[in-house]
Amino acid sequence: MNTADLGLPVAVPSTALFTDHYELTMLQAALRAGTADRRSVFEVFTRRLPEGRRYGVVAGTGRVLDAVENFRFGADELDFLRRQGVVDEPTLAWLADFRFRGDIHGYPEGEVYFPGSPILRVEGSFAEAVLLETVVLSILNHDSAVAAAASRMSVAAGDRPLMEMGARRTHELAAVAASRAAYVGGFSSTSELAAGFRYGIPTIGTSAHSFTLLHDSERDAFTAQVDSLGRGTTLLVDTYDVTEAVRLAVETAGPELGAVRIDSGDLLLMAHRVRAQLDELGATRTRIVVTSDLDEYAIASLAAAPVDAYGVGTRLVTGSGHPTASMVYKLVARAESPDPAAPLVPVAKKSLGGKTSIGGRKWAARRLDEQGVPEAEVVGTGEVPAELSGELLQVPLVRGGEILGREPLDTVRDRHLAARSRLPLSAMQLSRGEAVLPTEYV
Amino acid sequence: MNTADLGLPVAVPSTALFTDHYELTMLQAALRAGTADRRSVFEVFTRRLPEGRRYGVVAGTGRVLDAVENFRFGADELDFLRRQGVVDEPTLAWLADFRFRGDIHGYPEGEVYFPGSPILRVEGSFAEAVLLETVVLSILNHDSAVAAAASRMSVAAGDRPLMEMGARRTHELAAVAASRAAYVGGFSSTSELAAGFRYGIPTIGTSAHSFTLLHDSERDAFTAQVDSLGRGTTLLVDTYDVTEAVRLAVETAGPELGAVRIDSGDLLLMAHRVRAQLDELGATRTRIVVTSDLDEYAIASLAAAPVDAYGVGTRLVTGSGHPTASMVYKLVARAESPDPAAPLVPVAKKSLGGKTSIGGRKWAARRLDEQGVPEAEVVGTGEVPAELSGELLQVPLVRGGEILGREPLDTVRDRHLAARSRLPLSAMQLSRGEAVLPTEYV
Repeated sequence: MNTADLGLPVAVPSTALFTDHYELTMLQAALRAGTADRRSVFEVFTRRLPEGRRYGVVAGTGRVLDAVENFRFGADELDFLRRQGVVDEPTLAWLADFRFRGDIHGYPEGEVYFPGSPILRVEGSFAEAVLLETVVLSILNHDSAVAAAASRMSVAAGDRPLMEMGARRTHELAAVAASRAAYVGGFSSTSELAAGFRYGIPTIGTSAHSFTLLHDSERDAFTAQVDSLGRGTTLLVDTYDVTEAVRLAVETAGPELGAVRIDSGDLLLMAHRVRAQLDELGATRTRIVVTSDLDEYAIASLAAAPVDAYGVGTRLVTGSGHPTASMVYKLVARAESPDPAAPLVPVAKKSLGGKTSIGGRKWAARRLDEQGVPEAEVVGTGEVPAELSGELLQVPLVRGGEILGREPLDTVRDRHLAARSRLPLSAMQLSRGEAVLPTEYV
Repeated sequence: MNTADLGLPVAVPSTALFTDHYELTMLQAALRAGTADRRSVFEVFTRRLPEGRRYGVVAGTGRVLDAVENFRFGADELDFLRRQGVVDEPTLAWLADFRFRGDIHGYPEGEVYFPGSPILRVEGSFAEAVLLETVVLSILNHDSAVAAAASRMSVAAGDRPLMEMGARRTHELAAVAASRAAYVGGFSSTSELAAGFRYGIPTIGTSAHSFTLLHDSERDAFTAQVDSLGRGTTLLVDTYDVTEAVRLAVETAGPELGAVRIDSGDLLLMAHRVRAQLDELGATRTRIVVTSDLDEYAIASLAAAPVDAYGVGTRLVTGSGHPTASMVYKLVARAESPDPAAPLVPVAKKSLGGKTSIGGRKWAARRLDEQGVPEAEVVGTGEVPAELSGELLQVPLVRGGEILGREPLDTVRDRHLAARSRLPLSAMQLSRGEAVLPTEYV
């Protein structure tokens, strides 16, 4: 069955309409001109990182593989295209049989990237490769933007766990993908059930202010919560007066109280006060969770505070100021004729207003210095220099239409944490700066 | 059948897991405490508009209604919750029977809003109303953010049509909702096929740079496109040299050429040059479409240029700097006991660090001055003053679980354009400023 997993409780048919109209009109014109089956190479890259960022994080690759596998035009899709006159009958007939049979290579998911890094390379006929443009970019641009923000937050948090809580501040399905990307970037858990359902990410949460307000008193609310969720629960202590609530929380749950959560106010000040009060009450193992409009800077500013975990919402799911990764999908080489044996010719748009592309099918490697620390992202079109042949970044993801590159999300997360930790130390600075590795073209 | 329409080629089951874990643990604790069926009123509002914005745009209400209708826990969802130990068996049993049976009122979709405007009010038992929090906020926060950006762009564009082209820069399903929200805000069309499929929004598009690069020459590419799509097509003229491409475009298609598209460079300069060249070549009716990283300011800067249509991508789907509308869903009143006859009591969290809420079930009206121009957003909790009773903003959307408020998207779009045009003229300024109407609480 032709199904796509979109983070829903069930799979649903086809990703083929997550596509711009012009991909299909180009297909129609190329079919008619006899150029649709020219062998073509498209590459995904970004011309620059978001201002001040030191590195990017490849995320969404696993979702791209699902989208490619399920990119089929069924009866409903074809009827729509016919009814709207999007394309002609020969094109509809071609689409009815379509499945991607080309090759895809790319940076493994979780890897870091820099301006010009060819993070995905799609090869096949022009027809089959051009069709994937929109959905591939949608996924990579969204997921990589969230993962990059998550990674910076995770650097700022150090060993303290980060909880993703942003579902309410982004589109309901973008939220599921955002939880996944946040996990890749170093988060530990999510508030959102669909992300737990789909990706097995641990879900967390206990109560909101509304639960306290529902009851006749804070005492009633805390008692109700502890009765139901146990003493290990997290009580929200900033509905009325924090000091009184902390006192009441320990009185209600005892020193076994799992945690208290603070969701407003001066978190630095409050964390110190609440820690002192908890310790005084004997609740020395009760943890403090903070969750109020955090970003990487706010997290870093709490490094010396007695905080045990951070919950992050809005700023995470919106990429902390950069909600899209600005990746593009460009034709970089194609054959001169539909003859399958015709050689590939590099192509590129002429630069105008900074929209530079470099033609040619590219390899990429990360050059190490004598200490084994990466010193440059090397991108080339010709022979790979012998000294770089062990440092190549791209791996096969799809071969002849067959999906090869699926892997568990924990593998992806571990890869990211490892790749990040190998970077020069300045990559970990939150302050604005240039990409931590220069990109060299050879 | 229990299905939800998410902008996909087909409907899929249930929106119930687009929900934060804590909604369910609160439900469990309240069920056990006997407080779950206390009559409760939740309201959706925002504490402030994005910095500098003059008004907000309510968008997503129609999608909220679909989400509410399809918020059901089926076997897959319940199995997941049981397996993960999210809630206990009595709660699972309660969820298995759940459907929302309460009432929802709200600002009609497309209406403008201001800080504190109660744009949605959900009434029912605490249990049924709290469950909807996450998905309601996801939808309204995303869609309203995009619609607000679209509305400003549409003000800047005046009578010239705006085309939404941002699918590749946002999550693949957020893209479908973004097209819808952009249409509400005043856009005319979308590049994305799924948005055409789901919402009947006109889809547009012809070709990308890759199509030109695929062919042996620009002439071959233009010929292929015109042969297939007709002389009325839009040719992309900035792959190599714009002047040469415009010459070639008119030579290929004749003066009947529909349009040329410029996607890079200095658009103001280029538009003037290209217009002069087209006129000189006799292609006086060939239109000029521009599409390079536009936002409301870039659109406004082209007001005096000979541009016929704008295509907007990244900045639209990311809310032009404000990708979420920062709406919250707050318990504002609840009964003191589960007795259905118990009166409602206003409740509110104590203000701490600016998180102000005002308790009580609210009405809202837009007070007009003597000229009939709105002068204030009036929000109140008591009796509606007689002079405002004709200006009330909220309408019934759901009654006893039955969806009342469905309407065609064109009705919503027309409502927005009318509501916007009634605002004081300063609402149309792009420059930063305060909300164009003050919010008064009575």
